[in-house]
Amino acid sequence: MEWLLRRWKELLPGLTTPALQKQYRYRCYHGSPHRAKRLVLSQLFQPLNLPEDSVVGLESKPDDLTCKSQRLMIQAGLIYPSSPGCYYYMPYTVRAMEKLVKVIDQEMQAIGGQKLNMPSLNSAELWRTSGRWDLMGKELFRLADRHSKEYCLGPTHEETIADLIASQGNLSYKQLPLLLYQITRKFRDEPKPRFGLLRSREFYMKDMYTFDTCEEAARQTYSLVCEAYCNVFNSLGFRFVKVQADMGSIGGSMSHEFQLPAGIGEDRLMICSNCSFSANVETINPDQTDCPVCKGKLSETKGIEVGHTFYLGTKYSSVFNVNFHTAQNKPVLAEMGCYGLGITRILAASIEVLSTEDSIRWPTLIAPYQVCLIPPKKGSREEMGAALMDNLYDSIVEAVPQIKGEGVLDDRTHLTIGKRLKDANRLGYPYVIIAGKKVCDNPPEFEVWNQNTGEIMFLTKEGVIELLSKVQVP
Amino acid sequence: MEWLLRRWKELLPGLTTPALQKQYRYRCYHGSPHRAKRLVLSQLFQPLNLPEDSVVGLESKPDDLTCKSQRLMIQAGLIYPSSPGCYYYMPYTVRAMEKLVKVIDQEMQAIGGQKLNMPSLNSAELWRTSGRWDLMGKELFRLADRHSKEYCLGPTHEETIADLIASQGNLSYKQLPLLLYQITRKFRDEPKPRFGLLRSREFYMKDMYTFDTCEEAARQTYSLVCEAYCNVFNSLGFRFVKVQADMGSIGGSMSHEFQLPAGIGEDRLMICSNCSFSANVETINPDQTDCPVCKGKLSETKGIEVGHTFYLGTKYSSVFNVNFHTAQNKPVLAEMGCYGLGITRILAASIEVLSTEDSIRWPTLIAPYQVCLIPPKKGSREEMGAALMDNLYDSIVEAVPQIKGEGVLDDRTHLTIGKRLKDANRLGYPYVIIAGKKVCDNPPEFEVWNQNTGEIMFLTKEGVIELLSKVQVP
Ligand SMILES: [Zn+2]
Ligand SMILES: [Zn+2]
Repeated sequence: MEWLLRRWKELLPGLTTPALQKQYRYRCYHGSPHRAKRLVLSQLFQPLNLPEDSVVGLESKPDDLTCKSQRLMIQAGLIYPSSPGCYYYMPYTVRAMEKLVKVIDQEMQAIGGQKLNMPSLNSAELWRTSGRWDLMGKELFRLADRHSKEYCLGPTHEETIADLIASQGNLSYKQLPLLLYQITRKFRDEPKPRFGLLRSREFYMKDMYTFDTCEEAARQTYSLVCEAYCNVFNSLGFRFVKVQADMGSIGGSMSHEFQLPAGIGEDRLMICSNCSFSANVETINPDQTDCPVCKGKLSETKGIEVGHTFYLGTKYSSVFNVNFHTAQNKPVLAEMGCYGLGITRILAASIEVLSTEDSIRWPTLIAPYQVCLIPPKKGSREEMGAALMDNLYDSIVEAVPQIKGEGVLDDRTHLTIGKRLKDANRLGYPYVIIAGKKVCDNPPEFEVWNQNTGEIMFLTKEGVIELLSKVQVP
Repeated sequence: MEWLLRRWKELLPGLTTPALQKQYRYRCYHGSPHRAKRLVLSQLFQPLNLPEDSVVGLESKPDDLTCKSQRLMIQAGLIYPSSPGCYYYMPYTVRAMEKLVKVIDQEMQAIGGQKLNMPSLNSAELWRTSGRWDLMGKELFRLADRHSKEYCLGPTHEETIADLIASQGNLSYKQLPLLLYQITRKFRDEPKPRFGLLRSREFYMKDMYTFDTCEEAARQTYSLVCEAYCNVFNSLGFRFVKVQADMGSIGGSMSHEFQLPAGIGEDRLMICSNCSFSANVETINPDQTDCPVCKGKLSETKGIEVGHTFYLGTKYSSVFNVNFHTAQNKPVLAEMGCYGLGITRILAASIEVLSTEDSIRWPTLIAPYQVCLIPPKKGSREEMGAALMDNLYDSIVEAVPQIKGEGVLDDRTHLTIGKRLKDANRLGYPYVIIAGKKVCDNPPEFEVWNQNTGEIMFLTKEGVIELLSKVQVP
């Protein structure tokens, strides 16, 4: 206690004005921060060094519960399981997620999307009004508060948004189209959580809800959102298909899924090899082998659903009285659409479709860090290259502002370059820069691996800077 | 259906390669987006136009459930109540929240903090291990999944983080201090949710957990985090006090609260008028009127708690076996600290302490938008000023990059300038620019209100640009 008070007084040299004058302002003592000037791997909480058997322990599950992305993400310490279908997202994953969110925010805002944030606790009353309290069955996480009032944890928010908009009495036709979205954690009590972040019970989703004056306007808005989704997937460099989809429990009259073809995918797609027709198998006659458009042959493939769009019409607006006022001040039901992007699912799907069996690959735009720099092993012939690597790191940060905070120096110089390169591969940096043999040349050259193309180049410091100045960071 | 297919084909001119070659890439049709070039108020979902009686309806609650920030935020449409203690955060509020998160991220990362994200569903087993499953009583939201496994919704994550770190078998002394934090939604079943975002049942919190090798190191880390908290509050321009605090149900041996003095505050603080001593009244003898340090007189004030720090020692690490390995490879219990900042509470507290009875004021750094531009009323003598205002808007965006996206043009020109200025005050833009009488001068001058200082200036376009180029946006 005495210590505390002493310390307290040391820290507060300036706080002597009378308290009730309310003029005081806390002055801080600035000590030397723990922070190292360079971001070094040994300081990062990225549990790469899990003993092999503890990884195996996590993996000793029935085969159908695991897939490549889950295995790679757990091995690299990107996620860690807590309860079935619930994961810790480790710092590298949070970085990737925040970048993805930026990319999506940009595209949503480019089409006039406005971001809000809705409660997770959704009243049973609201869900009973739409009929989904019963319809959703065991997929809803349900709970009661201290007053026995019932809630579910929102897996999706059609009821919640409809109730909000209905409460804003005088919505005008001039305010439409209205595109509202949120990026929040959602909950779904999956009967069989599996595949890591591909099918989990807690997950992040971007859900957008749109309101229009009439069907024609609503269909235009629908197209606009689909285009924005395409922009997102294109900027991540995905190969994807947009297929006609089933309406499921959400309802409505038109729906599409955005699918990444992948063997592990849980959706079966029929794709015409002749024209652009493609559909989730649920939407067509299961025996159908001919394309309904061109009569060409349909082939089956599997896909991971990463986005889903629904044209809802007035299904929810009629139940919740979501009206707007026309130019004649007449109340009319709004036409609604809803649109989902699986944030955490996209992260896992990226890894699923881009990675090799033992190396993670991220879409460059959302990779947690862009560059890993590997200095020579301590005691090796190239040891003098360590200082050159430090210098390279500092020069990059100075010359390429967007790379600031994007470079990790693997300072575990007791390990060979090969061992550290293997770890770098497990984490998936788009660029790995090694102080190899040519670092002793004059001028020194660095070995630069472009992990997404497989290309290896030998570049001077200036060459590295030129290369990295082309890298985009959201 | 036919329509759908036709449209589908129009949209997909490029998708003709055979699907199973997997070489296809979706091509997008780029229509003209809804997006207006300038951000105009009439397009924003900011329900300012609620009829007065519906606001009153929301407010007809016992007096002790409301306060200034709650009333102002509901009236301005910044939040909207869903269930008791649960709110929709509207777009303006989300913008302020995201800015606050950036400010906090910066300070946490400056001291080496690494951001992760932990599950909301916390298993009962984990909370039983610490004893808090029973201790927390009705404040915990509890639920069971489809297999009757019990969970709580995390209000705080000491158990969860301790379990994670314990699972990383070989944590080395070299990795310590380890500072991990998250910014996520938390849940607490408040007996009496009130004061809007000041005491709600769902809220966003920044919670940091630190791990150190010994008590001395842990106390250094504790100071470091406290300093970072000071930086956050100073950058928001808050007057605040750091007081010694009670340990509550979290436990530990040292604790401080960061309090904003405010009449509505739920904490009673005793502050010495002579020295720097200040304490939550819970930590001292209730009859004590003399300062324990200098024997000066203690005066009482009320405060809103916006941050809380705990030095935990080994309370949790001993229960969950959070060990690190020493240089001699000996496992030793880590010393822990935990640290909270109320994200949504800071937003409301800002408004509570800075606003007047009818005008919201934000800390400039986190204001949802920095500038509101009010062109002349349609049909007024200054109507020619409308084009000048458009031109000013465009010039600002071009000349001051950080203000891009920060300016709102109040295009409701059927309303008087006075009415729109009143609305601007209700929302709290740091700068309001009006096309007043002098907009007809040569050169035109704009009336610029600095809402946080009360200053009114008449500036040319160049003057406005110079003024705004000094504005900081996180
Ligand atoms: Zn076909
Ligand atoms: Zn004193």
